[in-house]
Amino acid sequence: MSDRDFTKTSGETVYEGKIISVEKAQYRFADGDEITREVVHHPGAVGVVAVDDEHVYLVRQPRQAIDDPDCLEIPAGLLDKEGESPEDNGRRELGEEIAKQADDWEHLLTFCTSVGSMDEQVHLYLASGVRDAPDAEPPDEDERIEVVAWPLDRLDEAIAATRDSKTLIGLLLLRNRRAKSG
Amino acid sequence: MSDRDFTKTSGETVYEGKIISVEKAQYRFADGDEITREVVHHPGAVGVVAVDDEHVYLVRQPRQAIDDPDCLEIPAGLLDKEGESPEDNGRRELGEEIAKQADDWEHLLTFCTSVGSMDEQVHLYLASGVRDAPDAEPPDEDERIEVVAWPLDRLDEAIAATRDSKTLIGLLLLRNRRAKSG
Repeated sequence: MSDRDFTKTSGETVYEGKIISVEKAQYRFADGDEITREVVHHPGAVGVVAVDDEHVYLVRQPRQAIDDPDCLEIPAGLLDKEGESPEDNGRRELGEEIAKQADDWEHLLTFCTSVGSMDEQVHLYLASGVRDAPDAEPPDEDERIEVVAWPLDRLDEAIAATRDSKTLIGLLLLRNRRAKSG
Repeated sequence: MSDRDFTKTSGETVYEGKIISVEKAQYRFADGDEITREVVHHPGAVGVVAVDDEHVYLVRQPRQAIDDPDCLEIPAGLLDKEGESPEDNGRRELGEEIAKQADDWEHLLTFCTSVGSMDEQVHLYLASGVRDAPDAEPPDEDERIEVVAWPLDRLDEAIAATRDSKTLIGLLLLRNRRAKSG
């Protein structure tokens, strides 16, 4: 057992919100030391790097938390449907957010957004051969989402234009793949 | 004015914690629509991609929020000292966490960890020419941090071994630079 191993000994929900909640929990290390930590619980999310031969499909949308009306992101959504797998969630979001579909889905990686504070995980997928989904669900009206077909030969400009963690990781992985294959 | 522009009209702190707080706030769009959002406020952080000619310096540490005793990360710290710039914070963390110093500091980018929920920003720096800092502050005993000198020629393995957003972004940017220069 390493001196970094710990077990949770107790926890109390100190805030219960609509999407997130906050828990104040106690942990004990193998050597007996005890610490208290605040943990933000989050349902998790799915992000989709959606490409066809010439474009990666991005969205611009208002993000109140970071005071940005035009946040540039890959299509994404909360993992908030009981029993839905991350990949199925990604397929649904691709239809709802940008009215596209894709046959070729690959799990790129799953990452944690803020390891010191929050348990949010984002499952990142690469969806290739993206095409119009005529029967896709229309987006919620209040989502105020603009779809941007970003040329793949200007990928570096998209990386420079976003501040969003899932979009940076997704586009940097895409750039590495394209550098390797081309 | 775009239909995505919004202004905050009111807000109330619904949880005040040690590091984070939660605000329930109201926003109004240009067309008059109003929405309520929960926002987690976070002080922000600094992450350092610290390299010498052969290594990138990483740390392993316990992260209760994601239930991981051995989270592999770049050196980092909270922006919790009033009046300290992000770069000075990075210099201090490099000394405190891994007892190193560097003369060459470059701001890589600043990103948002979770744009839908939280205002946390992480300022990422590249510190080159890293060397021992004999007069560095010793790390807090309770930090339980193991320093890992990771060989640069095995950078892809570090990228595959971490789940942490700042570490993924930092190491992917480092890999792209090395690919371009080599």
